[in-house]
Amino acid sequence: MLEIKGIGVSNGIAVAKAYRLVEPNLTFDKYEIKDFSEEKARLQRAIDLAKIELELIRNHAIEKFGKENAEIFSAHLLVLQDPEMRMTIESKIDKGVNAEAALDEVASTFIATFESMDNEYMKERAADIRDVSQRILAKLLEVDLPDLTTIAEDVIIIADDLTPSMTAQLNKQFVQGFITDIGGRTSHSAILARTLEIPAIVGTKIATTSVEHNEMVVLDGSTGIAIFNPTQEVVNEYEQKKEAFEAEQAALRAYIDQPSVDRDGHHVEIAGNIGRPDDAEVVRANGGDGVGLFRTEFLYMDRNDFPSEEEQYIAYKTVLEKMEGRKTVVRTLDIGGDKELSYLTLPEEMNPFLGYRAIRLCLEERSLFRVQLRALLRASIHGDLKIMFPMIATLDEFRTAKNFLMEVKAELIEEGFEVSDDIEVGMMVEIPSAAVIADLFAKEADFLSIGTNDLIQYTLAADRMNEKVSYLYQPYHPAILRLVKNVIDAAHANGKWVGMCGEMAGDEIAIPILLGFGLDEFSMSASSILHARAQISKLSKAEMTKHIDHILTLTTSADIENYVIENLL
Amino acid sequence: MLEIKGIGVSNGIAVAKAYRLVEPNLTFDKYEIKDFSEEKARLQRAIDLAKIELELIRNHAIEKFGKENAEIFSAHLLVLQDPEMRMTIESKIDKGVNAEAALDEVASTFIATFESMDNEYMKERAADIRDVSQRILAKLLEVDLPDLTTIAEDVIIIADDLTPSMTAQLNKQFVQGFITDIGGRTSHSAILARTLEIPAIVGTKIATTSVEHNEMVVLDGSTGIAIFNPTQEVVNEYEQKKEAFEAEQAALRAYIDQPSVDRDGHHVEIAGNIGRPDDAEVVRANGGDGVGLFRTEFLYMDRNDFPSEEEQYIAYKTVLEKMEGRKTVVRTLDIGGDKELSYLTLPEEMNPFLGYRAIRLCLEERSLFRVQLRALLRASIHGDLKIMFPMIATLDEFRTAKNFLMEVKAELIEEGFEVSDDIEVGMMVEIPSAAVIADLFAKEADFLSIGTNDLIQYTLAADRMNEKVSYLYQPYHPAILRLVKNVIDAAHANGKWVGMCGEMAGDEIAIPILLGFGLDEFSMSASSILHARAQISKLSKAEMTKHIDHILTLTTSADIENYVIENLL
Repeated sequence: MLEIKGIGVSNGIAVAKAYRLVEPNLTFDKYEIKDFSEEKARLQRAIDLAKIELELIRNHAIEKFGKENAEIFSAHLLVLQDPEMRMTIESKIDKGVNAEAALDEVASTFIATFESMDNEYMKERAADIRDVSQRILAKLLEVDLPDLTTIAEDVIIIADDLTPSMTAQLNKQFVQGFITDIGGRTSHSAILARTLEIPAIVGTKIATTSVEHNEMVVLDGSTGIAIFNPTQEVVNEYEQKKEAFEAEQAALRAYIDQPSVDRDGHHVEIAGNIGRPDDAEVVRANGGDGVGLFRTEFLYMDRNDFPSEEEQYIAYKTVLEKMEGRKTVVRTLDIGGDKELSYLTLPEEMNPFLGYRAIRLCLEERSLFRVQLRALLRASIHGDLKIMFPMIATLDEFRTAKNFLMEVKAELIEEGFEVSDDIEVGMMVEIPSAAVIADLFAKEADFLSIGTNDLIQYTLAADRMNEKVSYLYQPYHPAILRLVKNVIDAAHANGKWVGMCGEMAGDEIAIPILLGFGLDEFSMSASSILHARAQISKLSKAEMTKHIDHILTLTTSADIENYVIENLL
Repeated sequence: MLEIKGIGVSNGIAVAKAYRLVEPNLTFDKYEIKDFSEEKARLQRAIDLAKIELELIRNHAIEKFGKENAEIFSAHLLVLQDPEMRMTIESKIDKGVNAEAALDEVASTFIATFESMDNEYMKERAADIRDVSQRILAKLLEVDLPDLTTIAEDVIIIADDLTPSMTAQLNKQFVQGFITDIGGRTSHSAILARTLEIPAIVGTKIATTSVEHNEMVVLDGSTGIAIFNPTQEVVNEYEQKKEAFEAEQAALRAYIDQPSVDRDGHHVEIAGNIGRPDDAEVVRANGGDGVGLFRTEFLYMDRNDFPSEEEQYIAYKTVLEKMEGRKTVVRTLDIGGDKELSYLTLPEEMNPFLGYRAIRLCLEERSLFRVQLRALLRASIHGDLKIMFPMIATLDEFRTAKNFLMEVKAELIEEGFEVSDDIEVGMMVEIPSAAVIADLFAKEADFLSIGTNDLIQYTLAADRMNEKVSYLYQPYHPAILRLVKNVIDAAHANGKWVGMCGEMAGDEIAIPILLGFGLDEFSMSASSILHARAQISKLSKAEMTKHIDHILTLTTSADIENYVIENLL
């Protein structure tokens, strides 16, 4: 029996045999070729075959995961057709290098460049290129890549990494979970595991070298623990945990159609954060009261040019229609910083998190901003649209953005478009300056939404993606609680509602405190909604008052966390 | 007549003839050599001659600017003796490349590498290498570099750039000022201009191509404006401005031995920020009441290994002795982030300003921290030492740092060292979380010192070094004023004193507000001390109360700035 630990990226428990994904042998020799045009034709054939295969996988993925989750394969098809990469490979062939070596050298350079960027998004691009170039290489070598569609018994897949194309082939009927050596919370395989609701652990470093094919495996996606070759006792224990987990999931299901109220009937809203139109369905399937944060960046990613007004209009309309009149808060574009677009040149920045992004960029790139606002305003008649601006630090910025929105609205009406008259215009409170002067903002904004992920980073001056200082990412730091309370009090004093759309809103330690502070809307990932609703139904806002008084006297994050654990969970 | 604008880096006005620095002709041919060892010997002779010249310049600089300001030449001598650089050049010679070309190619690579680092400090290293390699090249070509010591009439020097070695040769008796095409506020030439008190403008881009040798020039170091070939009217105007400037300087001199009091006799402290022991003399020469911030990073820079306890002890002792019993606040090491040390490997960070630096690093690298604390504690008996920790975000950090200091103190006493019993231990308030919970810190710290440069950056989430968002660096943002007031009130409520050591403390718009808030200590660059003392002597803290009440109702930085300009300057 061997226990290892990785990053649990999709909850749930699985007990099944290991299916060790055998890596295909893609080794090749570098040799000199004479007939350049024959070699280029060979490369072309391999690319064509890879393209056919990839299109099949994409169709399979669309069927299984929906259109947006299959977009990764459209990205792969784009890589496949990238003229720069192909020309660089061909120029190597023209120097007498065989296609395999030429492909590998060029792909390695591209991968190294993207990987060196220390930017999650760009690292994913590196993974795309690796996936695609392996597929072409396999075609050149006439080797088959593993085909997971053939699995026909219950297994847990063990692999170095699951490429997106492999993940797309997973059959949920038989694949009980997967464990990989590499990857992180935001890698494609992790995201797809959550969508498929298959338990998964990534980043174990040693899974593939620790287990044999067909050995028994126990996997706990919540804790990130995997046990290879477990004793019968351990198997029994995990079978029980699995049952308990499934029972809990079933119990949570009972809350789907319930209102979001505390024990005394005090009403709050529990909404979902979404990144793509299809996610709205997941929010509804989990009983969300609305969408508290629609990140619109997806519209701009993985493409070669800005999305048109029409395209955006359709996306916003789709979400509003799927939400059937429920509140839908759309955040305007938050690009820049670490989120780059291939077709928009941004300055190199030493500290992108403290840089030119979001509203700062939109207020300067007005034509870009105008297209989004036009699309949003046009879509407003299809549901309950609320618009909020990200990264507001000064009143000037909020006023300028709101005035521009009004200007665009007047233009549209002039042009004969219908625009809703009830669009609330609010802002994210995610910069400390905005939290400190929330009273001034609350006079001018229709609502405030606290973005805790950034607010915590800036307030503690610690990049949470930076492992060396991630211990300073403290949601329960007394300064954070005071700022959050200040924002809520300021909004209420001005008769405005206030939401929270950072991870803190779905955090079970934070929820009792936020309820006590009087937060009106908790917006979180869809998978947390039912858990939050169940938790709140057992709490009493009125009763929280005395706890709040005590919590506000505590001086460290750890003290506050312990108090909640001991008294309120 | 032609007016151009650059960056004014040293105040004052000059009117004199242009001395156009003629760049030496350092062009050379690349050719193949046969006798490798003769060529290497030729390189060696050039290096030896450059070394002799550089040592002369260094001695000259020590005499004129003091030992620490001459350290740049010790850095140059280190470059000259860098075995890696020399071996790389020699290996090129061994391939048949002549010494000039080999030197130039290697130096260019080193320069490009350092310049690409987007880091002020590393860029300065690139300038060092350029300076040194030009000197060796001149020796190889048997060309003389310009010798500014021969100037014997009043001139304003016009140059593409002034290398540190040229600046060291400036004779203040004749050189009235200088104007360069390139450079910024922190380039060595700018720093030395301020030390010499010669007016200077850098970064004009076009000065050298806009003026002839011996043409008249007018230079205003406060505004960054230079006028070439001025009319007699303009000359008269600037002669008057020059007189007014000198009269103002003389009037300010009257405040040197005055106490720092407002109109009603309310007492504050006006202290200086220093970076090197010698700077303490400049603070005293400007009548500073003490040192409010001694940055200790200099001890660790421009060298190949950590400074020893003894070396640090001597540096701290020197400052304390120069301050003759006046308050001296030493900040412990604030390294990391953008400040790198060649001999300490730090992680690559995406956002160094939100990263692993200052106290975060010191609490993990305890042996490094211990050496500094030992040196400080041992020096404490030589003056009024106060110690403060930078970048404190949580109470845990402050407690851990203070406990460690106590532990080190106990060790020293155990070892028989004498340590003062009156050392106040405080902290920088430069992270928003610390400002928000200043009341909790004020219970445990002996004093608080507000570091506005970082506090503003983090509170507004804007890197002030980033031109695209530098407009968000707003010292008068209402959130900043509220946080500053909160820190001052919290300190006073707990009977502690509070200082400010960011640029805001010396800013004439901020000074009336800070006086009104009750700030106890204003610490600034030495050159601002007398101006601040004069300004405060004309204000009344008591009278500021009603202005403060009004200022706190204003909603934008611009409104607050305008109010102060109209009512309080």
